[in-house]
Amino acid sequence: MRATVMHKAGDVRIETVPDAAIRQPTDALIRVTRACICGSDLWPYNDGPNVAGQQMGHEAIGVVEAVGSAVETIRRGEIVVMPFAFSDGTCLFCEEGLQTACVHGGFFGNGGEAGGAQAEALRIPQADGTLYPLGVGEDDALMPSLLTLADVMGTGHHAAVTARVAVGHSVAVVGDGAVGLCGVIAARRLGAGQIIIMGRHPARIDLARQYGATDVVSERGDEAIARVRELTGGLGVQSVLECVGSEAAMATSMGIVRKGGAVGRVGVPHYEAIPGAKEMFYGNVIVAGGPAPVRAYIDELLPDIMEGRIDPGLVFDRSVGLDEVPDGYRAMNAREALKVLIRP
Amino acid sequence: MRATVMHKAGDVRIETVPDAAIRQPTDALIRVTRACICGSDLWPYNDGPNVAGQQMGHEAIGVVEAVGSAVETIRRGEIVVMPFAFSDGTCLFCEEGLQTACVHGGFFGNGGEAGGAQAEALRIPQADGTLYPLGVGEDDALMPSLLTLADVMGTGHHAAVTARVAVGHSVAVVGDGAVGLCGVIAARRLGAGQIIIMGRHPARIDLARQYGATDVVSERGDEAIARVRELTGGLGVQSVLECVGSEAAMATSMGIVRKGGAVGRVGVPHYEAIPGAKEMFYGNVIVAGGPAPVRAYIDELLPDIMEGRIDPGLVFDRSVGLDEVPDGYRAMNAREALKVLIRP
Repeated sequence: MRATVMHKAGDVRIETVPDAAIRQPTDALIRVTRACICGSDLWPYNDGPNVAGQQMGHEAIGVVEAVGSAVETIRRGEIVVMPFAFSDGTCLFCEEGLQTACVHGGFFGNGGEAGGAQAEALRIPQADGTLYPLGVGEDDALMPSLLTLADVMGTGHHAAVTARVAVGHSVAVVGDGAVGLCGVIAARRLGAGQIIIMGRHPARIDLARQYGATDVVSERGDEAIARVRELTGGLGVQSVLECVGSEAAMATSMGIVRKGGAVGRVGVPHYEAIPGAKEMFYGNVIVAGGPAPVRAYIDELLPDIMEGRIDPGLVFDRSVGLDEVPDGYRAMNAREALKVLIRP
Repeated sequence: MRATVMHKAGDVRIETVPDAAIRQPTDALIRVTRACICGSDLWPYNDGPNVAGQQMGHEAIGVVEAVGSAVETIRRGEIVVMPFAFSDGTCLFCEEGLQTACVHGGFFGNGGEAGGAQAEALRIPQADGTLYPLGVGEDDALMPSLLTLADVMGTGHHAAVTARVAVGHSVAVVGDGAVGLCGVIAARRLGAGQIIIMGRHPARIDLARQYGATDVVSERGDEAIARVRELTGGLGVQSVLECVGSEAAMATSMGIVRKGGAVGRVGVPHYEAIPGAKEMFYGNVIVAGGPAPVRAYIDELLPDIMEGRIDPGLVFDRSVGLDEVPDGYRAMNAREALKVLIRP
């Protein structure tokens, strides 16, 4: 089968790899009908993959082609969404809704045991716990939005939940990528009163406004902090959704959060220590977040997509076939494309 | 009047200073009947005060001697407890129960505008918001426990609350000082199932057991982390109460917390950045805490003291007059005394 393989920084190719197949009785095999490129795929695209020959991609919708002998709820022929992490659905962490800590879990497309979703097909470990049947047709018009349940919409929601967004809260979203934009959706959905998007890309800012952002801060560093404080009566915001993962983004987050407020981190951190430990302490600031248990959030988010209350699929501004995936990486890395949808 | 003054590291004296007096219409003046020395007073005792001539002490019970013209609820003659921070009781932070972020607030005994409580008398800014009438006599037998409402019992409770202790949770308390021991009380009070005290001082460990600790870990560093993991089926604890404030204590906390768990920091941090930002992220670990809004917690904790359900006053293992306060500092710093009560 054909799949996306990263060899080294900047070197991503479509290659023929061994066909995906059932290996464990708890596996399912899906034919991928939609996949996409994630902002987090750009980290290895710039810094190099975890392993040479890493199969890429961790977001997909597909058709179940086969299931292992121990799979009980997932059936052949179902259209399913695949969260970026697989999970058994039964361990103590899954029980408490933290599927990204599953004792039998792991991540797709990171060079580990599971393959990548930017491919024609994919083996799904722990199929019963992992896959979520969507109950729609293979080419439903809502596909782009449904695909965001695999990662970015659930991740933006996790940022909002861990940043404790509540009705009437002031919120800032650091980062205008697809996750940040989904964070705006999530913050509005949870009743935020003020939503400040921090970014500078005109098309993304426009989409953020469409999603409910009330203010835009395009400055950076100390100027950005000053501007957010100005917009919040000097207090800072109650909730910060940190959707970048750089140390600078985290320092900005700590600079704009109100005393007693919370920072929800969902940008994969590329720093070793959280800056501002003393200011954070004296302000009773909470720092939370991590890999989103998007599997847990589908129950809550899916109805809003199906009934048209949220439209996260607008984050896809380019659609490509498998052969064009390398150019999709290039375009996203150059910020020409916000998020690239793949039809394998 | 006589008060405790710190000149430089290790140099703390009882001196005659200008009498405390009403300065603002919102002030009260108390005659101090009980005060004490805090573990956090040992930081300036070792590293030097914030300002030379700093008046020390931030925990007291006293009798109201006078009130300013704008004071409405506090009355002359009442026996009151004074939280370590003053607060107006009406600002947006006080309204949400975060009195340590009060817009008109501040801290006692830190060299700022408010004096120190290790003295014969003290001016209380924002008297209505700050003071809490206890409704007991000046020499009530419960005085030691009531005095802990000024700081250590409320601070231990804050550690437990911000570490999200809940019924049946596994909890570790890092530090066997008075705050850590009150953290054990708080964790048990909130229904923790397993409470691991991390410390090595025999008398303190005994008191921790009396307060409800189920396990003791006396190792340090990586050995301590391994031991806590061993006691928790390899998972770590759901809640860590960090009651020390050193970088080593924070690193230990991050090493023993379970995925999805929380660290509640109440030890004043003597480090600039929180270690383990990546592990914290991948584990969806929450870090919270800060100066405890002890004023908010008195409503909840006072009945448990009055009705004998908790006995935090046992943390006081020495009682001195004002003249003996310098020796009290020495004894606490040498870990000869756990916490020193002062009868001015």
